[in-house]
Amino acid sequence: MSAPTTPDLLALDRAAQDLLFRAARTANTFTDEPVTDAQVAAIHDLIRYGPTALNGQPLRVLLLRSPESRARLLPYVSSGNRAKTASAPLTVVLAADVDFHERLPELYPHRPQARDWLADPTARAEHARFNATLQIGYLIVGVRAAGLAAGPMAGFNAGGVQREFFPDGRHEVLLLLNVGRAGPDAGPGRLPRLDTGEVIRTHDAG
Amino acid sequence: MSAPTTPDLLALDRAAQDLLFRAARTANTFTDEPVTDAQVAAIHDLIRYGPTALNGQPLRVLLLRSPESRARLLPYVSSGNRAKTASAPLTVVLAADVDFHERLPELYPHRPQARDWLADPTARAEHARFNATLQIGYLIVGVRAAGLAAGPMAGFNAGGVQREFFPDGRHEVLLLLNVGRAGPDAGPGRLPRLDTGEVIRTHDAG
Repeated sequence: MSAPTTPDLLALDRAAQDLLFRAARTANTFTDEPVTDAQVAAIHDLIRYGPTALNGQPLRVLLLRSPESRARLLPYVSSGNRAKTASAPLTVVLAADVDFHERLPELYPHRPQARDWLADPTARAEHARFNATLQIGYLIVGVRAAGLAAGPMAGFNAGGVQREFFPDGRHEVLLLLNVGRAGPDAGPGRLPRLDTGEVIRTHDAG
Repeated sequence: MSAPTTPDLLALDRAAQDLLFRAARTANTFTDEPVTDAQVAAIHDLIRYGPTALNGQPLRVLLLRSPESRARLLPYVSSGNRAKTASAPLTVVLAADVDFHERLPELYPHRPQARDWLADPTARAEHARFNATLQIGYLIVGVRAAGLAAGPMAGFNAGGVQREFFPDGRHEVLLLLNVGRAGPDAGPGRLPRLDTGEVIRTHDAG
């Protein structure tokens, strides 16, 4: 009898494995099909259950759909990311709310003093960035759970996007994400992945 | 006819939604059932397809199972996290390889010069932390995809864990994660989540 194959060792069914990870691909072109507010809300209603430290949930999401909104973003986007950002049905600005701790008395009610643990603004901003980034990981999975393709982009002027879209000074912009149905020739072939042995090792205490 | 409910707007089937997000919970107690290397490899073989910038894949994972390994970790873990870390069948140290760029010529072969874009160590460490954190988001989803519970912990002395387990100086420790089957009384009731309207807004360019 042969050893069980990887997909069989997981509780998640094979179709879901494919949808979220194995067959899912970062898209560089998109169809014209809109991404609706109801779809975005459904994605959020799924991924909001992903865990964050102190249940702080610092991720904030700004949706850009109109040509006017897009026109404000494009000057800050690197030249290689501009065409796909102009043509995606939805571009999302992902930011961390560095004052997320104000909500902790509601979000972490059994330890209302948690807000005070985060009084230091520098440590709090780092905490906000880290946990919002975890939530971006969940969000990318959630976009795929909706049958859509995600196109994350780090190539942009984060300071410029922050000033343009979050002038309040309480948000740090982390990533842009194009969202839509993948178009034809949406991306290059699957790039190589590291093997388990290159990423994971067991600590030998001896 | 009523509007479609949230789960119906997603392509992911309801059972998978529950397994990964809606019914999944951070666990604080675990059963004695071991988490095998085959399970860990299956989780990695799923989540390694999650996207990272420049396909850099900076996350590195150290598995602690033996009492000796655990004994080395516990002094660095906050008192509130110690009992569950001592009793989990597997504790994982999650780190970013800040020299991940050495692999880019293989991992991003169509732009072999990408390695040189990351010559600056400070910018590269930030890039490594951000993308490894995204991968931790995928990993938490992957642990759940294996039918296991994850217990992420930020309450520990990262510098101490780094010196003890990654003395090479090329890794930054980001998070600890207990993994196993959830035990009885594994956690408190579901904590409140922010509503979509509190997290997501549409940019009005006007």
